[in-house]
Amino acid sequence: MWPLKSNYDYPRNQWYVAGWSHELNNEMPVERWFLGEPVALYRDKAGKAIALEGRCPHRNYPLAKSIIRGDALECGYHGFTFGPDGRCVRIPSQDVIPAACRVKAYPLVEKWQWLWIWMGDPEKADEALIPDHDEMRLTSPGWVAVPALDRVLNCRPQLLHENLTDISHLAFLHAGTIGTEAIAATKVEVSQNERFLRGSRFIPDETLTGFLSEVLGYEGPVERTVLIDFYAPSVHVALESFRKPGGEVIGEFRVHHAVTPAAPDRTNYFFAWSRSFAVEDQSLTDTMNTVFAGAIQQDVDATQDIEAMVRQMPEPKELLVRADEHSIRARRWIEEMIEAEQA
Amino acid sequence: MWPLKSNYDYPRNQWYVAGWSHELNNEMPVERWFLGEPVALYRDKAGKAIALEGRCPHRNYPLAKSIIRGDALECGYHGFTFGPDGRCVRIPSQDVIPAACRVKAYPLVEKWQWLWIWMGDPEKADEALIPDHDEMRLTSPGWVAVPALDRVLNCRPQLLHENLTDISHLAFLHAGTIGTEAIAATKVEVSQNERFLRGSRFIPDETLTGFLSEVLGYEGPVERTVLIDFYAPSVHVALESFRKPGGEVIGEFRVHHAVTPAAPDRTNYFFAWSRSFAVEDQSLTDTMNTVFAGAIQQDVDATQDIEAMVRQMPEPKELLVRADEHSIRARRWIEEMIEAEQA
Amino acid sequence: MWPLKSNYDYPRNQWYVAGWSHELNNEMPVERWFLGEPVALYRDKAGKAIALEGRCPHRNYPLAKSIIRGDALECGYHGFTFGPDGRCVRIPSQDVIPAACRVKAYPLVEKWQWLWIWMGDPEKADEALIPDHDEMRLTSPGWVAVPALDRVLNCRPQLLHENLTDISHLAFLHAGTIGTEAIAATKVEVSQNERFLRGSRFIPDETLTGFLSEVLGYEGPVERTVLIDFYAPSVHVALESFRKPGGEVIGEFRVHHAVTPAAPDRTNYFFAWSRSFAVEDQSLTDTMNTVFAGAIQQDVDATQDIEAMVRQMPEPKELLVRADEHSIRARRWIEEMIEAEQA
Repeated sequence: MWPLKSNYDYPRNQWYVAGWSHELNNEMPVERWFLGEPVALYRDKAGKAIALEGRCPHRNYPLAKSIIRGDALECGYHGFTFGPDGRCVRIPSQDVIPAACRVKAYPLVEKWQWLWIWMGDPEKADEALIPDHDEMRLTSPGWVAVPALDRVLNCRPQLLHENLTDISHLAFLHAGTIGTEAIAATKVEVSQNERFLRGSRFIPDETLTGFLSEVLGYEGPVERTVLIDFYAPSVHVALESFRKPGGEVIGEFRVHHAVTPAAPDRTNYFFAWSRSFAVEDQSLTDTMNTVFAGAIQQDVDATQDIEAMVRQMPEPKELLVRADEHSIRARRWIEEMIEAEQA
Repeated sequence: MWPLKSNYDYPRNQWYVAGWSHELNNEMPVERWFLGEPVALYRDKAGKAIALEGRCPHRNYPLAKSIIRGDALECGYHGFTFGPDGRCVRIPSQDVIPAACRVKAYPLVEKWQWLWIWMGDPEKADEALIPDHDEMRLTSPGWVAVPALDRVLNCRPQLLHENLTDISHLAFLHAGTIGTEAIAATKVEVSQNERFLRGSRFIPDETLTGFLSEVLGYEGPVERTVLIDFYAPSVHVALESFRKPGGEVIGEFRVHHAVTPAAPDRTNYFFAWSRSFAVEDQSLTDTMNTVFAGAIQQDVDATQDIEAMVRQMPEPKELLVRADEHSIRARRWIEEMIEAEQA
Repeated sequence: MWPLKSNYDYPRNQWYVAGWSHELNNEMPVERWFLGEPVALYRDKAGKAIALEGRCPHRNYPLAKSIIRGDALECGYHGFTFGPDGRCVRIPSQDVIPAACRVKAYPLVEKWQWLWIWMGDPEKADEALIPDHDEMRLTSPGWVAVPALDRVLNCRPQLLHENLTDISHLAFLHAGTIGTEAIAATKVEVSQNERFLRGSRFIPDETLTGFLSEVLGYEGPVERTVLIDFYAPSVHVALESFRKPGGEVIGEFRVHHAVTPAAPDRTNYFFAWSRSFAVEDQSLTDTMNTVFAGAIQQDVDATQDIEAMVRQMPEPKELLVRADEHSIRARRWIEEMIEAEQA
């Protein structure tokens, strides 16, 4: 689907964020869609997080609308029951259980507050491939990390990726809160390592906006560094760092965007952030949550508006400029992952 | 449409329930869709129920949004008027009426509270083919029959048929009201005669649930018989019969489900029930209506949830077990009817 | 799209009504869709009305959700800025502006309260082709003209054109307000000149309905003339003229319907009216606005109901009668315009 060249819409043999630890329990399953498949998420009696294919193979009833029986999931329609490994353990109307009567059990890993799911070949699910939560500053000493919000967007995933990799939009879409024109005016330097694709901006003479000034408790000129690291195919981590001119760090925060395709034209969005200053200040946390929620809503509106626009275009097109280098290299990386899987 | 093999979605030369007698009058037409066609239902001045094609041939205005003039229907747009036989009797802007200016008039028969419509070749509309209302216990002495409710479901008709022919779902979808696990655990015996396809379950040692115990005014062990008779292609009649162990009948009731396709993916559902005990007890009628309405809503939710699920599947599939024998034979019967018409 | 024979849905090299003068300002753009394209409408600092393509070529963000900067439009996403001629004047992240970075600027002309847009080849946009507003009695001395209302209809444009060119529907759809059966019973005379296609009805012995009697301040028999002039492809102007039998004019009013395709299945409708009597009477204006708004709603309901009906028909058809001559000739005129452009 445009703007990807491939007809195949996402790499499968990858870790994606599936939700938040605090959402799952042994009482009621959570239903989500990932990569075009329904998934039922819950915990077994021991508290282990489990992800099963969310559709009963018998009559296609949504398994997430089911009842948790001990460690298993009992279909709400005819009572077919599936253990945490996906195997059927009970068919109420007969004793024999056909071998074909099973659902997929997806590898699911909890790190920090995030649940990471692997929708592809389970043999290839290597936990070492999950982005480093210390590096992302979600689990680093001296940082407070906040699981802020999640949304399902009516847009193709790539539109959200390209929102996140061209932060020149901060100056316009988020003018008045987190954006200043200096961000758009500053050239982005793009670099890649094995883990992420980085877009860097260094602004030697920024003046803090009202919100940032309030958050940092600092007025006047600063040196601002803005990095955005794309851990393909799913997570973008931005670093905002502020220094006194030529001097010490005033404060740093990070924002974490997990983009998990629900379907070719629908996208799960999980948003977190962390900071390294005033880590005990709940009132500051509340303020930052409120402002970030407003900015996220602007991004949701923009990507959905563009989706609606693109759907009206017989042949969608775009006009790329230099500031899109980060976006285009991120897009190409995802396409390479898809091509490698299809090869 | 899956799960039918045919691309043609329903037999046409058959009787289907179109509504309730109490809905029709000489004041305002009722609009329904049957087998992909719009229908306008009303009564002439003498009270005869009439079904006309619900679309003016002139400009395709919905005839059911029209005015009843005596025995005829006057199109609300330009006043073309159609008699009960479908022939145009007036074009306000000219005196000559082209022979092609007519709408279909469908055979319509009232039995009990049900209106039966024949959407196919009118020459073949034999009233003797309508299921026997005495046999269904809608018009039998000693029984009270209740026209309970109707709904339009956003699902293909077959999903509702297969809900009704696999009543092992009572144990799970309707747990706590009309279902017990014994129903799911009991093998279904399937038999066929010229009129209906029967699924029988005999439970020698059932214990009544709260609702059934209250309805029957009886506590303790019973012998329970559950029959469900499919009068293809449209009506399912269930019999619930309760006896003292080895002894006399405590009570019997029937539930009547009429399934009339509106379109390939939309379904009219008309639900009635009857009982042979306490036939004058209006309070008991109210209780049963309330509980049945709750159960019907669960069926509506389930079939619509499955429809939504199946629409997301590139190639829908299912996994059939022994309890599906009744469903599969009912499905095959409908397919045979379609094939016979297409031959 | 049916009932047009062409797969191409509308002539492009034509003037269409785009909105009302009072809608545009230098504060906030207005978003509309015309002939399948998004358009942003606003005024420059000098007050000139401007219409730009409503989609940023960079990332397809809706330009009408943008900020007006002086005479230009600044995209709300990444700040690309476009002047009134459609050329990009600023890309915040770089100094070089590619020549391809531009949007269409559509010819836009204000006459009376109407904004006229030309979506086709700008070279061909000749203002002399706009219907004469004096002739339409929108700018004639002794007449008061009222910009009454606008709507977006979920129907193909042709259904609204054919509503407006067969006013025999007044007798039925608008019975009780502006319609009488005499209109349907009177033969329409169709004539054409270079500017418009006219349908004429002369009713020698009409009796005014309650509403018309109240408006005209006259009771009793009248001679009524009803003309409807179609200025293809976009505007229908009806004249209602009432005379004392064989004598002087009691009063005349006109209703003006501008039909501007939004997309093949969506239609902009701009409605105005004017009258030549009691031109200062605001209370009469309010009464007429109220009654006309009710009639317009009936037309909106009818055309949308027919659209819904036609979408359910595998092969839409119709049955034309003599009163459809005006409609059919209007349809053919639009088809000729399309064919001429496609040739």
